[in-house]
Amino acid sequence: MASIFGTLFRVSTFGESHGAAIGCIVDGCPPMVELNEEDIQIELDRRRPGQSRIVTQRKEADTCRILSGVVDGKTLGTPISVVVFNEDQRSDAYKEMEVSYRPSHADYSYDAKYGIRAVAGGGRSSARETIGRVAAGVIASRVIRKSSDNYECLAYVKSIQHIEARIIENDLTRECIESNMVRTPDSMAAEKMINLIEKVRSEGNSVGGIIECIVRGVPIGLGEPVFDKLEAELAKAMLSLPATKGFEIGSGFSGTLMTGLEHNDEFYMEGNRVRTKTNRSGGIQGGISNGEDIVFRVAFKPTATVLSEQNTVTRDGIATSIKARGRHDACVLPRAVPMVESMVHLVICDHLLRQRAQCG
Amino acid sequence: MASIFGTLFRVSTFGESHGAAIGCIVDGCPPMVELNEEDIQIELDRRRPGQSRIVTQRKEADTCRILSGVVDGKTLGTPISVVVFNEDQRSDAYKEMEVSYRPSHADYSYDAKYGIRAVAGGGRSSARETIGRVAAGVIASRVIRKSSDNYECLAYVKSIQHIEARIIENDLTRECIESNMVRTPDSMAAEKMINLIEKVRSEGNSVGGIIECIVRGVPIGLGEPVFDKLEAELAKAMLSLPATKGFEIGSGFSGTLMTGLEHNDEFYMEGNRVRTKTNRSGGIQGGISNGEDIVFRVAFKPTATVLSEQNTVTRDGIATSIKARGRHDACVLPRAVPMVESMVHLVICDHLLRQRAQCG
Amino acid sequence: MASIFGTLFRVSTFGESHGAAIGCIVDGCPPMVELNEEDIQIELDRRRPGQSRIVTQRKEADTCRILSGVVDGKTLGTPISVVVFNEDQRSDAYKEMEVSYRPSHADYSYDAKYGIRAVAGGGRSSARETIGRVAAGVIASRVIRKSSDNYECLAYVKSIQHIEARIIENDLTRECIESNMVRTPDSMAAEKMINLIEKVRSEGNSVGGIIECIVRGVPIGLGEPVFDKLEAELAKAMLSLPATKGFEIGSGFSGTLMTGLEHNDEFYMEGNRVRTKTNRSGGIQGGISNGEDIVFRVAFKPTATVLSEQNTVTRDGIATSIKARGRHDACVLPRAVPMVESMVHLVICDHLLRQRAQCG
Amino acid sequence: MASIFGTLFRVSTFGESHGAAIGCIVDGCPPMVELNEEDIQIELDRRRPGQSRIVTQRKEADTCRILSGVVDGKTLGTPISVVVFNEDQRSDAYKEMEVSYRPSHADYSYDAKYGIRAVAGGGRSSARETIGRVAAGVIASRVIRKSSDNYECLAYVKSIQHIEARIIENDLTRECIESNMVRTPDSMAAEKMINLIEKVRSEGNSVGGIIECIVRGVPIGLGEPVFDKLEAELAKAMLSLPATKGFEIGSGFSGTLMTGLEHNDEFYMEGNRVRTKTNRSGGIQGGISNGEDIVFRVAFKPTATVLSEQNTVTRDGIATSIKARGRHDACVLPRAVPMVESMVHLVICDHLLRQRAQCG
Repeated sequence: MASIFGTLFRVSTFGESHGAAIGCIVDGCPPMVELNEEDIQIELDRRRPGQSRIVTQRKEADTCRILSGVVDGKTLGTPISVVVFNEDQRSDAYKEMEVSYRPSHADYSYDAKYGIRAVAGGGRSSARETIGRVAAGVIASRVIRKSSDNYECLAYVKSIQHIEARIIENDLTRECIESNMVRTPDSMAAEKMINLIEKVRSEGNSVGGIIECIVRGVPIGLGEPVFDKLEAELAKAMLSLPATKGFEIGSGFSGTLMTGLEHNDEFYMEGNRVRTKTNRSGGIQGGISNGEDIVFRVAFKPTATVLSEQNTVTRDGIATSIKARGRHDACVLPRAVPMVESMVHLVICDHLLRQRAQCG
Repeated sequence: MASIFGTLFRVSTFGESHGAAIGCIVDGCPPMVELNEEDIQIELDRRRPGQSRIVTQRKEADTCRILSGVVDGKTLGTPISVVVFNEDQRSDAYKEMEVSYRPSHADYSYDAKYGIRAVAGGGRSSARETIGRVAAGVIASRVIRKSSDNYECLAYVKSIQHIEARIIENDLTRECIESNMVRTPDSMAAEKMINLIEKVRSEGNSVGGIIECIVRGVPIGLGEPVFDKLEAELAKAMLSLPATKGFEIGSGFSGTLMTGLEHNDEFYMEGNRVRTKTNRSGGIQGGISNGEDIVFRVAFKPTATVLSEQNTVTRDGIATSIKARGRHDACVLPRAVPMVESMVHLVICDHLLRQRAQCG
Repeated sequence: MASIFGTLFRVSTFGESHGAAIGCIVDGCPPMVELNEEDIQIELDRRRPGQSRIVTQRKEADTCRILSGVVDGKTLGTPISVVVFNEDQRSDAYKEMEVSYRPSHADYSYDAKYGIRAVAGGGRSSARETIGRVAAGVIASRVIRKSSDNYECLAYVKSIQHIEARIIENDLTRECIESNMVRTPDSMAAEKMINLIEKVRSEGNSVGGIIECIVRGVPIGLGEPVFDKLEAELAKAMLSLPATKGFEIGSGFSGTLMTGLEHNDEFYMEGNRVRTKTNRSGGIQGGISNGEDIVFRVAFKPTATVLSEQNTVTRDGIATSIKARGRHDACVLPRAVPMVESMVHLVICDHLLRQRAQCG
Repeated sequence: MASIFGTLFRVSTFGESHGAAIGCIVDGCPPMVELNEEDIQIELDRRRPGQSRIVTQRKEADTCRILSGVVDGKTLGTPISVVVFNEDQRSDAYKEMEVSYRPSHADYSYDAKYGIRAVAGGGRSSARETIGRVAAGVIASRVIRKSSDNYECLAYVKSIQHIEARIIENDLTRECIESNMVRTPDSMAAEKMINLIEKVRSEGNSVGGIIECIVRGVPIGLGEPVFDKLEAELAKAMLSLPATKGFEIGSGFSGTLMTGLEHNDEFYMEGNRVRTKTNRSGGIQGGISNGEDIVFRVAFKPTATVLSEQNTVTRDGIATSIKARGRHDACVLPRAVPMVESMVHLVICDHLLRQRAQCG
């Protein structure tokens, strides 16, 4: 449903970019999970504005508060409400947007759908909405780790425009991803990416790129055979993030260039565990996790907000032009890394509970 | 849920490949929609085995029967049940599969999840499951056309391995897609593709490719701002189809190579209609359809079933090898075209009803 | 949703009274549950027409067939489809109904909602729809018994009009309920009830009554604190059955005549098990099962179909009169007993899986 | 789901009685509905403590704040979050409850389900949870009135223990219900009821009673034929309220004493509108509203909290006794009236949107 995600571990998010507050309710969380506001704050800080010089300098502390569902640092099994009150509400910066539609933004389609929209900051279409997802993702990851203590979800910036990071999958750690402000484990690429972002920003332009995500320690057997295949749920989760244009898992689009004999993942035994020699399946077969790492990539378009003049039309259908003002991300990818991870946590946690329900 | 798709226009599918029957229930269909078995049969015939020499020669008429929800050629508003009884149940061809896991199939992950599986024909993981989706898709498309009579969903084979079709988007018609057995509108590419498919089949191998889909006449305003963005729903729908590895909309992965100024779709007026000059957004902005064509691509891996020896393990964890026998598709794409279209119908129809409910 | 029930153990039913077939799909059933058609047939036989002289003599064997989800007598974890093909389709008996609305039936409200309806036999509003529920209920009860082997659900006819059965709750068994055709454990009351039913039928009239249901061995902790309280789910389940007008649990309406001190169920220890001295709560406290027997009652109105002339109007708004013909139940309660039990199974099973998911 | 109600107009509630805050998110509300905090506050004031001398004197202003989904007094179509911060958090009054289970409360069953609970004030099982429902109910009623301007939902206290109000259904108005603090339209009965409530409270005891609800102006055609019959949804909604033990619609339990000929509602024409002479159906036939008033009754048990000593057990299974202290309702019915109305609004609004979706 619209603003609700999940079948059993259900997250409802609320909040407009420049409204009073942003947040979520998590319904269906197991009881007795250790949780406090600091846990959530750590991840919110990874997505918040102003964390480095290459992201928007909008001033938001994004301090969260848990309003329900937790007593003495433990979840009760009842709904957990997390809220962040908005601080930096400069609505005057948005007068122009009230009249004219920003290209490749949601302004026109919201108006066409609802006949009304919250203009300031893009309202509900703003990436600020993901605050609720990140908070919920922290809770989800706690639940997963109670069942699988080697669970680890590592998203990183794979490419910014033409600059691509080189990685050795097995060596990837959270530390090396966090070692630079662009969140890529390849330090040489990081430098180039930072330079590129600063350059396009200085030109009133923007860039996009690809985030890759590697999920380790996913319990075997998660996902459903038909509509709710695990990769289908991940695809939906990723395409529900702002600015995403594509999703591919395992061999993805380039897998279409191989033959079946090249592409198939042969099984072998590693001790008494069934393994595959290659992982073109991306850790999911027939919609169900097979114990290999889940590996997927997500395409993020260049930020729609650019500090340059663009042609557009007004609400009344008059040709005009618009130029964004204010503080914006010239590249969303560094801040999107925790968003991608959060959505993975939500999908995996939901399917973990579903699997426990059906197959014990 | 597992085998249920949609919020308001809800499809439940059932059936194992070699079980007694395959089918679906459609719940929530509007009343007074004209519908009969012939309408459904036309689309089932586009996906059925044996329709041409490049698809599996398995013998199934796939004759459908409507069991409920329709009287005198009109829907009642109550659940519509459609069933296809299976005919060609050669279970003896599957003895080997009972013991050994086929590489890149669902055999192992089903066993790991459920502890049991229907061996013959892959059971629920077989593409025969999509019969129910195609039947439901026909019903959905009828509902959509009552609201938007220029609605048209055209999927076609964009590439088979390295062979890519060239098309002029505006000239695309159902007729030119159906003019050859591979379902691509580029007749020169079609010939090469057919040759390639026949070649890999003769070698006991298989190939994959990319299907592109262009959806015209989608009402403006469909889709939800956050989790149920229209592209997110389409991504899930596509990744829920067997053998899919990727989804991209509009500019997709290649859009990550552009700058924001290059990528943004400027608005202009065409009469009193708001249009965009380019369509890198792929017809959806902020999760909501904007009236431009919806354009997306889906990656299909090479068929996992190959008529060559491959290494694998048995259920008991013993190294072995397996070689598929019988009649299989060396390339699923020609038959996947109606599956892609069906899932589009289901997504659009569901969101059409949701939009009508919320925004009148 | 309309014709789908349950969150995890989901039942979709389909079928009009005089359509081709009636049935259901059960989605989300755990794997490895023993199941065959005979198990289901036993319960269908308890609800079918013609089983005794006091129920409708309509000729339907109601023979079921499992189309999917079961191999070698065990569930696969995939959707289970059960179908009963209709035999006795005397549509000519319904000509009059096509024109005139039967009082206290669904004819008018269906027309007002959909603008169309399946006239013959009441279409979807017929109690034949419950075939799918009873079939699904059998599957649900099998799932529950795997977790709680002393689970037992005993519904019986508590009263027919003014005739009330006297029972000793602890002595109640399935055998004594099934010992007579009215399905009440008090044999003296049974005789009077049978006489009453035969009398009103001979007068072209009908009667209703109350079914009480006692559910033993329900696992502790089932149900949710707020909207999905276990009693709320049971209330919905019961009021979704045809002809029901009321539901009460534990002390019910008569509990409103007591004071709090009289009404409260004091706790005590029985060995190391927490018990209550009285059971005015009816086995559920705060929406959650407490281990005591769940006890509730359901009011069934007198059958709307009477073989006497009644005033009504036509579809075109003309005053007229109508008199039912054919074979009808003068009292639905004997056949409603298995329907009540089936709905209990569905509710308990769904919450058992939900509890397993959340609280492990 | 647990704390989520509705299919299209979806309400998620959160909050423990003595936690930081209580509230809700409403997802799926149509855009352009006029709404402000004052509208909601009016109804919250009808349910809040301390409003009269016969209800609990607990000090809570229950001041609400809208955090999202509304701009300039109009809904946006995005999630509406409403929150009430708790003030009167005397947790020391609950030390005893931490150790011992209060009879007929949720203490034991929560512990059995979750292994943990918020002790103070009953946590999630407190009637404070209904704040979110009442807030959401106001929004729902606004939506309904846009479609049906004569929509009116009037709940009132029908009886307190043995004292029953006499009413003339057609004369019932909100004003006469609100004319006394017990919320019954019969002023003579009101006086007796108030005396009774004061008497039992002075004795450390409590009483229950019956609330009747009459809903006028419900659009024809709402409700679904099978599981989501309108009366089934209402039954669930009512049984989900704290302290409820029964629900009956139209003729209810007493209808079981009539014959079919007495019970059936004959149709007649009133101008060009189809009406029924009697309304034993309670405004719903075959699960679908028929345009007559919806009339139902709900049984509320005597408040479980009594200021007298009662036997019980501790969490550790030791026999003990407990006596409530503090400020409690000796009778919940006066404050339950707006809760009943709120749940009606939620059910009707949800089905209004569903009907609009399916049948246009």
